[in-house]
Amino acid sequence: MAVKVYGPAYASAARRVVVCLIEKDVEFEIIHVDLLKREQKSPQFLKLHAIGMVPVIQDGDLTLFEPRAIIRYYAEKYASRGMDLLGKTTEERAIVEQWLEVEAQNYQLPVYDLVVQIMYHPKMGLSSDEGLIKESEEKLGKVLDVYEERLSKSRYLAGDFFSLADASHLPFTQYLVNDVRKGYLIREREHVSAWWEDISNRPSWKVLKL
Amino acid sequence: MAVKVYGPAYASAARRVVVCLIEKDVEFEIIHVDLLKREQKSPQFLKLHAIGMVPVIQDGDLTLFEPRAIIRYYAEKYASRGMDLLGKTTEERAIVEQWLEVEAQNYQLPVYDLVVQIMYHPKMGLSSDEGLIKESEEKLGKVLDVYEERLSKSRYLAGDFFSLADASHLPFTQYLVNDVRKGYLIREREHVSAWWEDISNRPSWKVLKL
Repeated sequence: MAVKVYGPAYASAARRVVVCLIEKDVEFEIIHVDLLKREQKSPQFLKLHAIGMVPVIQDGDLTLFEPRAIIRYYAEKYASRGMDLLGKTTEERAIVEQWLEVEAQNYQLPVYDLVVQIMYHPKMGLSSDEGLIKESEEKLGKVLDVYEERLSKSRYLAGDFFSLADASHLPFTQYLVNDVRKGYLIREREHVSAWWEDISNRPSWKVLKL
Repeated sequence: MAVKVYGPAYASAARRVVVCLIEKDVEFEIIHVDLLKREQKSPQFLKLHAIGMVPVIQDGDLTLFEPRAIIRYYAEKYASRGMDLLGKTTEERAIVEQWLEVEAQNYQLPVYDLVVQIMYHPKMGLSSDEGLIKESEEKLGKVLDVYEERLSKSRYLAGDFFSLADASHLPFTQYLVNDVRKGYLIREREHVSAWWEDISNRPSWKVLKL
């Protein structure tokens, strides 16, 4: 039975999940949730996830929310199917978890702020906070310097294997490169650039590119 | 050989790790890092963790940062020793991961903002942002309403077992209750209150209370 993924296919958090489902050869169907109509706050949706955020998955009796919890679940449940996204040992998984946390805690927020300020504020007729844009770009630059050093030693963030840590970077890096036109932050760093070229050309991601 | 935990013992992120090491019966020693002297940005420390944040652990050849990655590692490595903090099945672990993510993504930030505005700004002679305090308290209230509903059905967040998801809430909830005097947010919710009474009285946490 196909896994039900609630959320618009274009939402970054949903794409974080879907790219991993494809990597793990898991059959899924998207149940569209219209964020503009605030369907994620409807009584029906709040029964699935009381905080009212997408995505949520339903897989038989299991209902699960939070994208990074969902991708861990499928990576673990189907460890030997499709790509191994968690590493082969407890120590390898620890390193995957470390970079997955860096993405969640240090990478996502400055990119999010850039997307909101550069892409959404003008669309909404709001002025952009130039100070916040500058600050976010500086923060992100420091994180990317750390990635550059790391990726000069290993092909992917957690080692020589593509993992959840790399996959989780796809949606927001796509925003950064395409939508907010800050691709130079990637391109000016040799190893980050090669890594992005590699992961963004995976078939699992190419079908999801907007 | 004892695990080396770099970070001041009082730092919330270090206490998140240490409480789990105690639960898992892992021997450790604290290597003090003086944050006021910005030792976490010293060249020596940056070799351990290029982003320059505490805690970092060293365990034989393994160096690991990001507190929630560290606690997952020990919960998995010593699955059958001390408290089982991840659940017994892949599905139980998925639910633990879900609430651990809610803590990281939805709970920590409003408490952090309250701590900064109510505790640190006055100490630094800065005025507090009353709007942000109100907004953070409202956000937190909504998350705690979700916890109240959840904890009316199970003793702990992930089910009837104490897990990483509960443990990870300890440092910031302690700040909330003691330091910013917002304990009423906990006390006015019957099941959240009983849960806090339970988890904050675990011997592993009582030795760490400041």
